This record gives sequence, C-alpha cells and structure tokens, in this order.
Amino acid sequence: MKLTNDLFLRALKREKTERTPVWLMRQAGRYLPEYRAVRAQAGDFMSMASNPELACEVTIQPLDRFPLDAAIIFSDILTIPDAMGLGLYFVQGEGPKFERPITCAKDIDDLPIVGADDLQYVMDAVSLTTKTLNGRVPLIGFAGSPWTLLTYMLENGGSKSYAKSKALLYKSPELAHQLLDKLAQSTVSYLAGQIEAGASAVQIFDSWGGVLSPADFAAFSLKYMKQIVEGLKNAGYQDTPIILFSKGANRSLPALSRTGCAGLGVDWTINIDEALNLTEGRVALQGNLDPATLYASDAFIDGAVKQVLDAYGDQPGHIFNMGHGMQPDMEPEKVAVLVDAVRRHSSRT
Amino acid sequence: MKLTNDLFLRALKREKTERTPVWLMRQAGRYLPEYRAVRAQAGDFMSMASNPELACEVTIQPLDRFPLDAAIIFSDILTIPDAMGLGLYFVQGEGPKFERPITCAKDIDDLPIVGADDLQYVMDAVSLTTKTLNGRVPLIGFAGSPWTLLTYMLENGGSKSYAKSKALLYKSPELAHQLLDKLAQSTVSYLAGQIEAGASAVQIFDSWGGVLSPADFAAFSLKYMKQIVEGLKNAGYQDTPIILFSKGANRSLPALSRTGCAGLGVDWTINIDEALNLTEGRVALQGNLDPATLYASDAFIDGAVKQVLDAYGDQPGHIFNMGHGMQPDMEPEKVAVLVDAVRRHSSRT
Repeated sequence: MKLTNDLFLRALKREKTERTPVWLMRQAGRYLPEYRAVRAQAGDFMSMASNPELACEVTIQPLDRFPLDAAIIFSDILTIPDAMGLGLYFVQGEGPKFERPITCAKDIDDLPIVGADDLQYVMDAVSLTTKTLNGRVPLIGFAGSPWTLLTYMLENGGSKSYAKSKALLYKSPELAHQLLDKLAQSTVSYLAGQIEAGASAVQIFDSWGGVLSPADFAAFSLKYMKQIVEGLKNAGYQDTPIILFSKGANRSLPALSRTGCAGLGVDWTINIDEALNLTEGRVALQGNLDPATLYASDAFIDGAVKQVLDAYGDQPGHIFNMGHGMQPDMEPEKVAVLVDAVRRHSSRT
Repeated sequence: MKLTNDLFLRALKREKTERTPVWLMRQAGRYLPEYRAVRAQAGDFMSMASNPELACEVTIQPLDRFPLDAAIIFSDILTIPDAMGLGLYFVQGEGPKFERPITCAKDIDDLPIVGADDLQYVMDAVSLTTKTLNGRVPLIGFAGSPWTLLTYMLENGGSKSYAKSKALLYKSPELAHQLLDKLAQSTVSYLAGQIEAGASAVQIFDSWGGVLSPADFAAFSLKYMKQIVEGLKNAGYQDTPIILFSKGANRSLPALSRTGCAGLGVDWTINIDEALNLTEGRVALQGNLDPATLYASDAFIDGAVKQVLDAYGDQPGHIFNMGHGMQPDMEPEKVAVLVDAVRRHSSRT
C-alpha cells in the first residue's frame, strides 16, 4: 500500500527527510479520554487487546488528535507467553500476571514454540488497522524481547532484584538459553506474521535489558534479539526495518548497533549526540526526551524538544520519541505541544 | 583511635594495600536471623534505628559473622526529612512514608535547616558503635543525597516516573533549588556530626540519581553533593574521605570524579575497568558485582568475584562491594563465600 506519509520509514533508512518524524510509545493509552471510554466498554485489558475492532479503534485514536508520523498496533508484549499457555491476566493497579508462571525445568521443557497462527487476533488487528489507516502513516508491529518476557514469566509480578530470573541465568544457564531460544523462535514467526498482515516496521521492547551487566546483557538479551533480527532477514523480511529498544542498556549501544537492526531506541539517561557517536551512523536513533518533560509548562516542553533536536543535529536518521511511554496522568494537550514543537523546530524546507 | 584494620581507608586514599578491602551495602539487615531477632524485639524499624544500643548491636552483627573491612552505621537515609518534621514511618511491605509530605511552595519555605543536634540518636549510635568497635574496622557514616531525599519527600511512596519531583524541577526550579540547598546544608552538619562522633568516612547515597538526564543530574543532584563535599572540607573535615554513590548515573562518572570526593560507588551496569578509564585515577572505586550473583552457586560467586577483581586490575584504589544492597531473601552463607573469594583472589602478599 502506498503511504501518504513515509517520513518515519525514510528516517529509519537514514535518508534525509524534510522534518524529523515523531511518534510516542504508548501513544494509544489511558491518558486519552476516548481510550478510557473504549476500555470501559470492553471491560478488561485483554478483552480490548484481543478484539481486532477495538484494538484498531484505539490504535488510530491518537492519530486523530495529533499529526503523528506512525501508528503502533495496540497490543501487549506478553501475548507470546499467553499463547504458550501461561494464562495472562491483569490485576487493577498491579500490572500483568500469569496464572501458570514458570517454576521449574519441566515448565520450560514443556513450553511450546508458538507463532503467528497462535495469535490470530493480533494478525487480525494489524490487518484491519492497516486497511483502516489506508496509507495515512506506517503501522509499527511489536514484540517483547526474549529476556524481558523471561523476567515476566518467572517473576510473575513486579520485581526489584529479578532474583528468580537472574538465579536461572546463573544457576541453570542451559535452561535459560532453552527458554530464550523458544521465545526468540516464536517471536520470529509472530513478527513475520505482523509484517505479512501489514506492519511496515517492527519494534522489540527490551524493557528490562538495563538490569543486566554488560556481559549478561550480551549473553542473555542481545544474543536473542539478534537471533530475531537474523531470523526475519532469513525468512525474507530484510526490507522491513527493525527497531530495538533496550531501556537503560546504554553501555551496550555500540553492540546493539551491530545486530543488523535499522534503528535503536534511546532513553533519556544519555545525551543523544553521545548515542550518535557510540553508534557511528550504523543505525537510526529513536528518542530521547525524558517523558516527565510532559509534566512541565508548554514553553519548557518546546525548549526541551528543541534541545534534543539540536543535540542530534543535521545528520539523517532521527525519529523523535520519548525515552519511555506515555503515563496515564499525562495531559493530552501536552502531546500536542510536543508534536508541534518537533514539527516546527525540525523543519528543513 | 588507632585502627587494627585500615585497609578500607588506605584503599580510599588510593594507597597500595595487601588485598582488596570488602564491605557490603545493607550488610546489617533482614537477611541475617540475628538482625530479625533484634528487629522483632524492637518493634518497628524506627524504634530500632533511633535506639543507639540496638543500632550499635545490629551494625556489628555482620562483622561477627564475616571478616569485613568496614562497618556502616545502622540508620536510614530519611532521618533528615524526619528531623525536618515530615514524620517518617514505615508500612510493612511498602517502604518508607511521611505523615506530612511536601505538597506546596509554603511547605518548602517553612522547612527548617536541621543538623547533627536535631539527630542526637544518630550521633549517639555512631559514638557507641565507634567505642564498641574499638578500632577493629573503620565505621562509615552516611546520608541520602539531596535529590534522592527530595524524591521521597515529594512522591511519598514508590514512584515509577517521579512525576511530582520532576514537575517541581521543570515548573519551579527555584523552589527545587531552595529545597535542595536546605537539604545540602542540613547534610553538611549531619555528616560533620557523625565524623565528630567517630565515623572514619562518610557515604552519600544518591539512590535515584540515575532517573535524571545527564543535564538534570548535573543541575539537581551532582551540584548538591558537591556542595556537601565542599561544605565538609570548608568545615575542616578535609581528611575524612567521602564516597558518592549515584546508582544508574554511570554517564556522569567523569563529572562525579571531579567533585572532590575520595571514592565513587559503581553499580553493575558498567564494567569496572571502563569506570576506571572514565575516572582516570582521580578517585577510588567501590563495587561492582551484580547483587543477584548471591543467588548463584558458590563456584559461580567465586568466579564472578574474581572477574571484577581482574577487571579492576593491579591499580590501587579498589574497594570491593556490590552494585546495590543486600536483599532480605539472600543467604548469609553466600556472603561468606563472597568475602572469602575477595580475600583469596586479591591477595598481593
């Protein structure tokens, strides 16, 4: 399908663009009253995420408010463990949980490798959204990184020290690798399916990559994201750009930039010009405003946006985003200020 | 008082030592059954912390089990806000809370600057512990960093996005600076008092320095730790080494190493040899094992300890520690393995 606005994809290829494209992680979310209305109607989170019509509706909601340059399919990073049989559910105010978390070696051994066919509702949501967008902007598909999924599957609820996950890495590395490989294989099929269904790019969210030492990150997180990147290329999807976002793992940006991905997410704990130096132009960079900037005044947001754009400078390959997702207590009006600032300050025409 | 074991202080001065000294953050804590027994007897956390005899007893407990090279006074980083009148209390399983958190400009304006005289129970605990240790090992005094205290005083409970704290920085920076300055002034007096009472070194815990961008870190966290370092030097305590530990703020290690402190804590998300390069021998380094290593086998712990020691190499100025404190679910036996490994692998005699 011909895209009316392909700025995001051109920036991912590090082509020169007339201005810097912008989208926001969790741009479809609870900070929008129209999202909360759909959510109230649907009941729980998974009822909404597994209903293609509702997922399509909330995916497009932020695009009707703000001139964003990409949509991201409304879903959750834990759909794969759910399809593997763990039984995903959400407790109000507590985040995701599994009915049957991983507790022993047999659990890992018994886990099936899943794929696009096991997650038809996601494929249907991507297809319907692609059709509904009708080329307006590219649609981004996504998945969680194998390491990040592992932590949820073992910790089953919030964790400060990732005791169970790290104990697995340190005491039974072969079991950890078995689980991570199953997750990586499943993710290749899952993301290939999203691309087939219409996604123009895919992002892998490695939310907890930053809790590992650089050596553990290389062995247990980066390795499996690379396996996914290579798996997609080998399956014939070499033209679909892949973005990796390992929050807090800035020490590993050089290694991440050599995985074959097209772009890297960058959080706000590193200046984006330093990230640019570390990755030496191998990839596009997506980021890196501190999301808490949205709690500030309009003038402050405008200045902070300009600062990130100026730090990145004139090189191609910048996609504006924040270093983390939108929070429920943020005001939609602030997103309008941010998007307007990106468009004004990055105009190169 | 003459110290029997001054390895820790000599390493802080970057003098050559016969082996690498070791202590652990939160080495006096819930993972020790003898600590839990005292805690059960005392009732709540603050009843124990504010009782000099009990604080002294639990401070020394880990030294009676393990051949550690330093003690750290048992206390809490939130004693200063408590002395300022905020009313610190602890909810089981929820962490620290304040009865009267900061909610408006007037709250900040009304806050008194406090000092050692307002925290006599801490001074008494340090005096008694120094006397009881009788030169066995140095005693470390400590305080929270002004930025980290600010987050607790505003968020009043756990926070993921530090919305209130960052909104203050971005919307009312002059109020943030007023609060941070009051905290820094109070901390100078508080740490000077601990030194007078017998502490041989002091550490400033900047637990949440890592949630700030490098520019915000410089303006709102580093600046006030530097004010404390300079305040102590100007008050005549230039011979007492100061350690700064900004968890997650590795991007700012070069700037931190230029504050006049003697040592820097280093978490596990950077290799310690890289931290050594970034700080160019200006300071001693304290760290940097991933604390989750203690969930692994004895052989794994031994190898991981050796790896950190080897990465640091033969230069002087290394104090072995983990990148974060002991967790309640860790086994005391594993600390014995760690301490033994440090002693064996770092022996230079």
